[in-house]
Amino acid sequence: MAHTLGANQYGKAECRVVRVVRDTPRHEIRDLNVSTSLRGDFAAAHVTGDQTAVLPTDTQKNTAFAYAKLHGVGSPEDYALALGARLLEACPAAETAQVRVEEYGWDRIGDHSFVRRGGSVRTAVVTVGHDGTHVVSGITDLVLLNSTDSEFKGFLKDEFTTLPETDDRVLATSLVARWRHASVDGVDWNASHEAVTATLLRTFAGTYTRALQEMLYAMGSAVLDAQPGLAEIRFSAPNVHHFLVDFSDFQVDGLSNDGEVFVAADRPYGLIEAQVTRDDAPPADDAWLAVPGFC
Amino acid sequence: MAHTLGANQYGKAECRVVRVVRDTPRHEIRDLNVSTSLRGDFAAAHVTGDQTAVLPTDTQKNTAFAYAKLHGVGSPEDYALALGARLLEACPAAETAQVRVEEYGWDRIGDHSFVRRGGSVRTAVVTVGHDGTHVVSGITDLVLLNSTDSEFKGFLKDEFTTLPETDDRVLATSLVARWRHASVDGVDWNASHEAVTATLLRTFAGTYTRALQEMLYAMGSAVLDAQPGLAEIRFSAPNVHHFLVDFSDFQVDGLSNDGEVFVAADRPYGLIEAQVTRDDAPPADDAWLAVPGFC
Amino acid sequence: MAHTLGANQYGKAECRVVRVVRDTPRHEIRDLNVSTSLRGDFAAAHVTGDQTAVLPTDTQKNTAFAYAKLHGVGSPEDYALALGARLLEACPAAETAQVRVEEYGWDRIGDHSFVRRGGSVRTAVVTVGHDGTHVVSGITDLVLLNSTDSEFKGFLKDEFTTLPETDDRVLATSLVARWRHASVDGVDWNASHEAVTATLLRTFAGTYTRALQEMLYAMGSAVLDAQPGLAEIRFSAPNVHHFLVDFSDFQVDGLSNDGEVFVAADRPYGLIEAQVTRDDAPPADDAWLAVPGFC
Amino acid sequence: MAHTLGANQYGKAECRVVRVVRDTPRHEIRDLNVSTSLRGDFAAAHVTGDQTAVLPTDTQKNTAFAYAKLHGVGSPEDYALALGARLLEACPAAETAQVRVEEYGWDRIGDHSFVRRGGSVRTAVVTVGHDGTHVVSGITDLVLLNSTDSEFKGFLKDEFTTLPETDDRVLATSLVARWRHASVDGVDWNASHEAVTATLLRTFAGTYTRALQEMLYAMGSAVLDAQPGLAEIRFSAPNVHHFLVDFSDFQVDGLSNDGEVFVAADRPYGLIEAQVTRDDAPPADDAWLAVPGFC
Repeated sequence: MAHTLGANQYGKAECRVVRVVRDTPRHEIRDLNVSTSLRGDFAAAHVTGDQTAVLPTDTQKNTAFAYAKLHGVGSPEDYALALGARLLEACPAAETAQVRVEEYGWDRIGDHSFVRRGGSVRTAVVTVGHDGTHVVSGITDLVLLNSTDSEFKGFLKDEFTTLPETDDRVLATSLVARWRHASVDGVDWNASHEAVTATLLRTFAGTYTRALQEMLYAMGSAVLDAQPGLAEIRFSAPNVHHFLVDFSDFQVDGLSNDGEVFVAADRPYGLIEAQVTRDDAPPADDAWLAVPGFC
Repeated sequence: MAHTLGANQYGKAECRVVRVVRDTPRHEIRDLNVSTSLRGDFAAAHVTGDQTAVLPTDTQKNTAFAYAKLHGVGSPEDYALALGARLLEACPAAETAQVRVEEYGWDRIGDHSFVRRGGSVRTAVVTVGHDGTHVVSGITDLVLLNSTDSEFKGFLKDEFTTLPETDDRVLATSLVARWRHASVDGVDWNASHEAVTATLLRTFAGTYTRALQEMLYAMGSAVLDAQPGLAEIRFSAPNVHHFLVDFSDFQVDGLSNDGEVFVAADRPYGLIEAQVTRDDAPPADDAWLAVPGFC
Repeated sequence: MAHTLGANQYGKAECRVVRVVRDTPRHEIRDLNVSTSLRGDFAAAHVTGDQTAVLPTDTQKNTAFAYAKLHGVGSPEDYALALGARLLEACPAAETAQVRVEEYGWDRIGDHSFVRRGGSVRTAVVTVGHDGTHVVSGITDLVLLNSTDSEFKGFLKDEFTTLPETDDRVLATSLVARWRHASVDGVDWNASHEAVTATLLRTFAGTYTRALQEMLYAMGSAVLDAQPGLAEIRFSAPNVHHFLVDFSDFQVDGLSNDGEVFVAADRPYGLIEAQVTRDDAPPADDAWLAVPGFC
Repeated sequence: MAHTLGANQYGKAECRVVRVVRDTPRHEIRDLNVSTSLRGDFAAAHVTGDQTAVLPTDTQKNTAFAYAKLHGVGSPEDYALALGARLLEACPAAETAQVRVEEYGWDRIGDHSFVRRGGSVRTAVVTVGHDGTHVVSGITDLVLLNSTDSEFKGFLKDEFTTLPETDDRVLATSLVARWRHASVDGVDWNASHEAVTATLLRTFAGTYTRALQEMLYAMGSAVLDAQPGLAEIRFSAPNVHHFLVDFSDFQVDGLSNDGEVFVAADRPYGLIEAQVTRDDAPPADDAWLAVPGFC
């Protein structure tokens, strides 16, 4: 039986674009990791090796760097929208162009001096097509920990279940959250991102939970409630286990461990993934295609 | 406007299960990284915190280790099928159980002594549901290089294009390939995996290409031709750039570089992703759901 | 010709000790990665397999966790001093105990809620011996960038030199700095660490440099000048190259790149390492033994 | 009190040099990661910013690539000796040049086609000085496992000791071994490396041990016995813990775990480091300076 080329995409991944704005002695910096993908009718390149329709990934890379100057980087989303529109236009065979951006934060320590902030990374995935444009903003590596107000009990048990129920544990995660904008017009991308992040932190800090699932739903609900312009939000949340260290076999008088000393485990880890969607959200189309995580 | 819990799944990721078979003095070893996910009606855990329907991820982990003994590890696929069926049965709220396995190879250096092989990693993603079962076998980190017989020319050019055309370049990739079996019955998983891997290597070594896309399509076609039991194959292939080092500015008489010295670049890299599908392939359903890569 | 066991050490590496202080509803957290090593007369364990003198690495791990409660974690240095003294006492064959600590910072977002800070990591290497005790404090992953006020010219040239001289470049590094305290008595470890870090940042931001070497010497000098209790400081500083992207071949009117768009490179990178020592510094003995970097 | 610049070095790290030999249709490949460092009188660069004596790291990189052609890569050691001699000659202020090489293996799958081998990495550290030359060969990431014939008992116990004694456990490590050649003249570097690696594997597979320490000493002794040209060997060996999974609380009739199912742990890990030295070994001078690990 014959076979056929199916879905395909190609592009340049992880262009490390650093943009310095030096219009005044007080410089600004935007530090991005930019990936692009084109999808469309590229069958000839696969089947016959004909490259006529292929805009090289090297050209996509060049364009990513040039657009940091030509368009600028007001926000990852704004930059990605411009870059995606350009790539779609430059490559007639393409039906959509996807631009994925990670932004690393820097803190100022002088007029032209900066220290990298570390911690969470801001993300944007922009898909520009002839039929519409989608923006998915997000955050990764947001490591959160509650040292109490978390329980886990009343769960299903079978013959392999040995986990004790608990009323008080550490809840920690390295959160990936991505949220889709219902519209891409008139959004203040920086303000929106700041507001969503603040809601995530505030909800995490203020919510008593009976499972990480409950926390994700609470965070998603709070974000959608506070941000009417968002269609949905998706989470991928490892349960970074912090196990209470057992001191009971140590021969030390009076040594106990009442929720004070934990071992942070690497693997295995729980992995909880969930989506919260506004009831009248416009369709996602290919907004989530090839986005990492539970999408 | 109200919002609703959307798709969700939960499980235990990256259980490092090592199984030693010591029935005779000549031991055997299987070294796995096992992840499990349950999908189904877990809304209560998210919305009200009620865990009644939730089989803990800790129990899933325990089951993964126990099944390495109870069922054994004849192959990653066979083990994952048994584990997935067990998890589905143990958790009535679940509609599907997905088991993802990576297997690390070891070479024998003695009756009970082994050296880890390194290189490519064998993978399996098994989805067991009430409506059917899917097996996606695969390989990751398969690093391949052709030192000639690769060109790239005749491509689309725009004002940002600076890449010279070439008749002779290094083609290298760190391949991820995943192939879906049309049926899960009566398959010799180890023989099948060995045969597919051999076809991938043979095709890579024997194909003159005008783009990495052409190589992926050639490899996919060869695999489907040779393996009638496969429904489709999907590739995610970074173009690991090996740039010819420019010696022209060195003040050394007679020093030239005719395709002999390259710098292997880290980032950015091209990223080519494609699927090849048999025309009468049975539907994939959720076989590819949450599988990393272009799926 | 015969051979002999030479230097040796053993211990437990990377205990992920998380200490929560919950004496009040406003919890505190200290998040450590703790490694221990014992050195001394452990020849029997190597040569004859006799473990009589060996305090197991598992016991060292247990002690690391227990001391987070028994002694507490006022600072990495203080905790390491107590743990090192305990291990030395518990293992008569040991001549020195070394404790290496990395501390990850967290920011408060609630009474018992925290977000991991990311960015630089605080370090301490404490060596406790019968003949004396040494404390080396430090910082790693301190990523710094000056977007101007850096030049590189007037360097030695040979027939392989192609680098153009420059008056204005980006200078960036991911700094590792470690400083040895002349004495371990009466030091306010947290205040000292904060002061040294502030001096490093202030010097980096305020210094015009002609090479990364000059920056390291300036930072080292400033730290020793400001901190009379320090004997020496050592740096390992990758030169994280930010190359100006060449727009000259793009066919875009008016497009130029006057120090505005850079590509951040991964490899290769310059690696500059240097020490600055106070003239009357007490001897280092084994303070730097087995410390990573140029030590 | 005044301070002084102490020891220092600078160079280019991690040049990814790939050398293809295409003299015949049957190509050969050598895949290297090359780092260089110069040490000597570079005080002016640090103290006054004067670069007159500094051979740029960019030039060192260029030379590393050029020498892959000019000298070729018969072996990592041979290439590093030539490159180090060149750098020392090209930079009069340098007193020594150190070249560190990692080599990644490839297996042939066609005349000009290769698959990366993975697994262990061959290393060489060559130090070329006006007073002499040293070669330290080595291997990293050599992951070894014995599934029996390993015990650990009779160890020292204190009030924090909870580890049970055992007669039968899994012994696994990811070995780093480095060995210093007594002389650099007339050595067949490839044959020597192959022989040492074979001795390491054979000894690991054939030795019953009571501790990882005993295994290191046995391996070191065997290597020095078999290779009269070696002065010493140094090991850094994580004890990659494989913990027997406890099935005793599972409610499954007849389920037991007699050394058959293990969890491979990530952290913490034991870390055992030791040196074995030939009694009449020539002095090491700076052969081990700045070499990673316990050196």
